[in-house]
Amino acid sequence: VKLADLTTPALLVEAEVLDANLRAMAAALPGARLRPHVKAHKCTALARRQAAFGHLGFTCATVREVEGMAAAGLGHDLLLANEVLDAHRLGGLDARVTVAVDSGETVEAAARGGVREVLIDVNVGLPRCGCAPEDAGRLAELARARGLGVRGVMGYEGHLMLAPEREKRAAGTEQAMERLARAHAAVGGEVVSAGGTGTFDLNRLATEIQAGSYALMDTAYAKLGLPFRPALSLLATVISVSPGYAVADCGLKALGMDHGAPAIDGARVWFCSDEHVTFAPDAALAVGARMRVWPAHVDPTVAYHERLFVVAGEEVLDVWPVDLRGW
Amino acid sequence: VKLADLTTPALLVEAEVLDANLRAMAAALPGARLRPHVKAHKCTALARRQAAFGHLGFTCATVREVEGMAAAGLGHDLLLANEVLDAHRLGGLDARVTVAVDSGETVEAAARGGVREVLIDVNVGLPRCGCAPEDAGRLAELARARGLGVRGVMGYEGHLMLAPEREKRAAGTEQAMERLARAHAAVGGEVVSAGGTGTFDLNRLATEIQAGSYALMDTAYAKLGLPFRPALSLLATVISVSPGYAVADCGLKALGMDHGAPAIDGARVWFCSDEHVTFAPDAALAVGARMRVWPAHVDPTVAYHERLFVVAGEEVLDVWPVDLRGW
Repeated sequence: VKLADLTTPALLVEAEVLDANLRAMAAALPGARLRPHVKAHKCTALARRQAAFGHLGFTCATVREVEGMAAAGLGHDLLLANEVLDAHRLGGLDARVTVAVDSGETVEAAARGGVREVLIDVNVGLPRCGCAPEDAGRLAELARARGLGVRGVMGYEGHLMLAPEREKRAAGTEQAMERLARAHAAVGGEVVSAGGTGTFDLNRLATEIQAGSYALMDTAYAKLGLPFRPALSLLATVISVSPGYAVADCGLKALGMDHGAPAIDGARVWFCSDEHVTFAPDAALAVGARMRVWPAHVDPTVAYHERLFVVAGEEVLDVWPVDLRGW
Repeated sequence: VKLADLTTPALLVEAEVLDANLRAMAAALPGARLRPHVKAHKCTALARRQAAFGHLGFTCATVREVEGMAAAGLGHDLLLANEVLDAHRLGGLDARVTVAVDSGETVEAAARGGVREVLIDVNVGLPRCGCAPEDAGRLAELARARGLGVRGVMGYEGHLMLAPEREKRAAGTEQAMERLARAHAAVGGEVVSAGGTGTFDLNRLATEIQAGSYALMDTAYAKLGLPFRPALSLLATVISVSPGYAVADCGLKALGMDHGAPAIDGARVWFCSDEHVTFAPDAALAVGARMRVWPAHVDPTVAYHERLFVVAGEEVLDVWPVDLRGW
């Protein structure tokens, strides 16, 4: 199958770039030092590539992702790095499942759901989930009293992930990890899980880094000067050309838009509609021409698509189902 | 099945509100005066309800939507209101299929693909698809010379759809339709297809209105004072509570974000992450509480979901697959 045969919009992964990204990360954070986050790609075939590079433990954001990873035989050590009340869906899986807890209610849900291990989720500066550092010890006691194994702590410094200056990411991560270290001292356990693509080489406390975006990348992460290159693009077809602008068949339903409009090489993007991107190309384009559109945010982009086409030049090497979508 | 049994996030449709919206529109634009746009809901079960209200012709945005509508037996009169090069997927369908064309290339694709009828798509002010009004007659001739039936013209005044003041929408629509009327005079044919939810009662030229959002609505359209109410919401679960804010399990992968963050009754929304919404509730909330989140843009929200739950109070009446997703 050739690129020219694909129905557009089609989500493409450059095989060579993906491999280079996986290789660079495995060199920096070998084996269990990285716990790849599957939320960025929602694809067990891609997770299998990550496992082949030596990372056997994975991070998930939803129960469905944990279920799918377990069903795919990738359940060696799955961390659901999120609070859930429907933990009963996790207890019976054929996998080692650890779930994040930050309240009495989520501890109780884990215990009742048959989950055996937890991490205490600590707020390290991002106003989202996670308990205050001073509550972490008490929660760990509560979890142990309910029969749960407490493997340690997690704390995601997500508010720093896209800070443009490396020094600010480093200093902010230092501060955030001071909070996590305090919590860890009170909780105990071997695991300190934290970090992401933007801080993968800056976080000195974490025993494991939860990076996910590094594999496919997007235009937001590409600005940070990281040793990973964009592997993900949308193949689109020019469907209309007018004086001063052109339109391709790739819009709001093919692209996560929370980080803004996508990029097109050799063009300024004006706006996206449901199924269109309107842009001003530097050079004339013909109706029917094929082109690449670079998403601004990898995670919600992939979540719109049924499959990833793994490509090398004009060849489609493989088709990977995006099989961890939904909830 | 009760609401309390659903896995969250779950996309809900209030049966009573949906029916009231469909009824109000059918009263304003009975039968063929409305050609409901399925892109807003991507759901043949919902389209079937619209057909039951008397609208037998439908508007589609993608080839997949046309294929799905034909397969569901809803192919009485399907308009693909978009330019496509892969028209060969349309020619063999068991349906009456009309496709929009705005260039020699799209005319040629339609003819070669076995499509029998077209509309000339005219740019009426939105910089997207559509030919200049002065080119419409020439394109119609070209299409007829290639053996295609030319049913008339279409021109979507999408740049006016969400203008806050009704007077501006009315005046802008008047201007836009002057362009379409000029094109129609040159093209001929019985169909003048245009309009949307924001101009459904303002467009005096169109023989048929392509509205879609009116059925489910969203917070953007809700600001316009139209006779349609929001029927679409996300059921979410509060998974974490901190001093001053709370977090529910409904984020960027459950919500189209191009119109901004969703709304929550009795709360100010701070931001969304992939699987979270962080918000400041007016009154204390407990972990495990269920709540409603109101999307800002219906179309790209529905496209993230596998199914719609049709509800009345705490009862789930029906489950409708979102079966027209993808391309």
